[in-house]
Amino acid sequence: MSQSGKAGQPAVEPDPGSTSPAQRQDTRLDTYVDRYAERAHGMKASAVRALFAVANRPEVVSLAGGMPNIADLPLNVVADGLKDMVLEIGPQAMQYGSGQGEPMLREQICEVMSLEGISADPDDVTITVGSQQALDLLTRIFCDPGDVVLAEAPSYVGALNTFGAYETTVVHVGMDDDGLDPVALREALVRLQQSGQRAKFLYTIPNFQNPAAVTQPVARRKEILAIAEEFDLLIIEDNPYGLLRLSGDPLPAMRAFDSDRVIYLGSFSKTFAPGFRVGWVLAPHAVREKLVLAQEAATLCPPVFSQFAVSSYLSNHDWKGQIESFKSMYLTRRDAMLSGLAEHMPTGTTWTHPDGGFFVWLTLPEGLDSQAMLPRAVSNRVAYVPGTAFYADGLGTRNMRLSYCFPTPERILEGTRRLGDVLAREAELHRTFGISDNQPRIAERSQAPRPNQR
Amino acid sequence: MSQSGKAGQPAVEPDPGSTSPAQRQDTRLDTYVDRYAERAHGMKASAVRALFAVANRPEVVSLAGGMPNIADLPLNVVADGLKDMVLEIGPQAMQYGSGQGEPMLREQICEVMSLEGISADPDDVTITVGSQQALDLLTRIFCDPGDVVLAEAPSYVGALNTFGAYETTVVHVGMDDDGLDPVALREALVRLQQSGQRAKFLYTIPNFQNPAAVTQPVARRKEILAIAEEFDLLIIEDNPYGLLRLSGDPLPAMRAFDSDRVIYLGSFSKTFAPGFRVGWVLAPHAVREKLVLAQEAATLCPPVFSQFAVSSYLSNHDWKGQIESFKSMYLTRRDAMLSGLAEHMPTGTTWTHPDGGFFVWLTLPEGLDSQAMLPRAVSNRVAYVPGTAFYADGLGTRNMRLSYCFPTPERILEGTRRLGDVLAREAELHRTFGISDNQPRIAERSQAPRPNQR
Repeated sequence: MSQSGKAGQPAVEPDPGSTSPAQRQDTRLDTYVDRYAERAHGMKASAVRALFAVANRPEVVSLAGGMPNIADLPLNVVADGLKDMVLEIGPQAMQYGSGQGEPMLREQICEVMSLEGISADPDDVTITVGSQQALDLLTRIFCDPGDVVLAEAPSYVGALNTFGAYETTVVHVGMDDDGLDPVALREALVRLQQSGQRAKFLYTIPNFQNPAAVTQPVARRKEILAIAEEFDLLIIEDNPYGLLRLSGDPLPAMRAFDSDRVIYLGSFSKTFAPGFRVGWVLAPHAVREKLVLAQEAATLCPPVFSQFAVSSYLSNHDWKGQIESFKSMYLTRRDAMLSGLAEHMPTGTTWTHPDGGFFVWLTLPEGLDSQAMLPRAVSNRVAYVPGTAFYADGLGTRNMRLSYCFPTPERILEGTRRLGDVLAREAELHRTFGISDNQPRIAERSQAPRPNQR
Repeated sequence: MSQSGKAGQPAVEPDPGSTSPAQRQDTRLDTYVDRYAERAHGMKASAVRALFAVANRPEVVSLAGGMPNIADLPLNVVADGLKDMVLEIGPQAMQYGSGQGEPMLREQICEVMSLEGISADPDDVTITVGSQQALDLLTRIFCDPGDVVLAEAPSYVGALNTFGAYETTVVHVGMDDDGLDPVALREALVRLQQSGQRAKFLYTIPNFQNPAAVTQPVARRKEILAIAEEFDLLIIEDNPYGLLRLSGDPLPAMRAFDSDRVIYLGSFSKTFAPGFRVGWVLAPHAVREKLVLAQEAATLCPPVFSQFAVSSYLSNHDWKGQIESFKSMYLTRRDAMLSGLAEHMPTGTTWTHPDGGFFVWLTLPEGLDSQAMLPRAVSNRVAYVPGTAFYADGLGTRNMRLSYCFPTPERILEGTRRLGDVLAREAELHRTFGISDNQPRIAERSQAPRPNQR
């Protein structure tokens, strides 16, 4: 396959439109429709999927995807490491492995987690096919149809997809500049209690939340843990970006303060490379036992060769130094994004100022609709993800997620300039005609984080 | 990780005891027990799991596992191919990819399938994390709790595990020497019709069935397809071993005769190596669309690096020649197994004579219990999988699956000698005391294939 230049457009994240109930339609007659499981009827390709195919054309500046920029990886080190690995232990690395994952990698993962204050036993780690599969297996273990899960408002589109695939009910909990709002969390838990319901877990991304790009300070984490203790709430802490904090050392993980109540998800997709699909779950022993059985039913074992490849990289390369190099690369890109937004956004537009991760969360001036204007943005050769993708309940029409991880700083600046043009024209339309040329929408509730003002 | 000698015992297949309702118990207090989903309560480690850990010790001849023997793979070719691949297209091979899988690999897969008479479009292929994940995603798409799926009696333990994880009801359909019995299939379908039920699909392994090791001749396949047409039945054809037919060319797949009613599962685990975890589904277009959405919710995308690695192997190596070399290696091992059994099995023992694949299915003399005697077999340094693992309904006590794929011919012969000793002693006990020293069991129904007599 060495000659293959194109291998299709990466999906990067599940179709961001697929969680939106609007605009769904089957384009072909499906003769199998009466055979599907109940859960499959919600699995439909959204209308924006075709648009994203267009958005991946090279002339479009895509601020939509969440692909890490791995161009700086030392290809020689990886190539030589893999060659040696195959020659020395190929028959083991290419064989079936354990459902839990390779012991040596699980030890190395404990070292990685120690950078965020986590003390863990390799026996409590289960390897997954990226963090996404961790979400899948945990939802499989914990959630029956109709069960309630709590998630930030907005939340990661891939998690919402998985929660939807298991027919759960997602209850969004508001955020502020410091991430998940403890007051809103307590209110949500009290409301559930009063209605005789119980949340199976809270799903939270404490660092550089995807998509809102806000971070919980340590005091906030402890406050949330105290509420969890009070309400006997399980927490799933998803932390793909924690080591990519742009200012100073990583913050301690929630799991560092509580090993019984917090199930921690980690990933090598952002600190090394996503193509190996190696993530992990750190869970209390009983949950870990269920996870391994679920993993065996799902895949027999996670990809063994990938695990050996990641392990080899961690052994052969200064991976901490590599993370520092990633950080300075992302710092430049984030700054390009922030200065481009400051220069090009029309009055009334606000956005968050991330301290790490890949994204900025933007709130449009009143009356504008990010989903309605997406085709016009793509015509103007810039793409983003409309805010509605990150809500299970149809909110987010005034928001969009912009990513600064992949394009060059120059392209990012150009992208914000193009986006600024589109927004100015939309705002002009709105001033002239009173509404955007989309259908009228329900009013936005104030659940989204209050972004820093421009 | 190049220094790592041990990486834990491979699971190879999910715990074969986990589908058996007998002897289950939780060994630790699980404080999360009231939080789990309904489906999780069936996920328990079985009592035989500990025994299999012992069975993996080097002094034990394990005829239990289904690990392919990949010692003959050309490590130099694989190592150089991977090195070149990383240097040339590393940033692409290590990046996120599409939920459906890499286009070039899907084209190559169509070439592979053409060897079994299948004509397919790469657009109808979806890559999965081994065939196991294909089973998982298809069951997810098609089955609600309580739905009926048909499977051969006995059937693959990994499939039964997955069907169990989705809380389906497995109805076993009997086999004879030519695999799935059309008469039994029709009876099962009529019974379901009469009770107002409908099978979501038939799961079948036409070639060298796991565990029964029988093969459907072409006429039998057509007969089954005609019944499927008559009853509007969907078929999942699982074909991991088809190209490893020991005599002559591979038989045409069921999918070669019917592209609407047959969903075909393939895998590189046995024709190349399992550690990459690359399998695939060939499905009608509408089903493929659901599969990709399900794959995105489960993993975002299947392992990209693995897909490029497999693609590179197919491009750089005479993979058809390699399959011929695997076949002659497995032929020697199968013959060792068959001659060992002929020499060492006590009177009244029967077994199947496989024409490919990895296994022999053995039926014990009346009164003997394969699960009860397993500890004594392991003490005598030979291991197998008790027949009960391959039934969802507790049958199989008089059966065992013996695999000849992994050990050397000498070890296989020695294994059958040790097994013969154990059986002779068990038979002696039975003659002396009238029963084996296990609890009395329900009578075995005659659902299993009639094996060739010794």
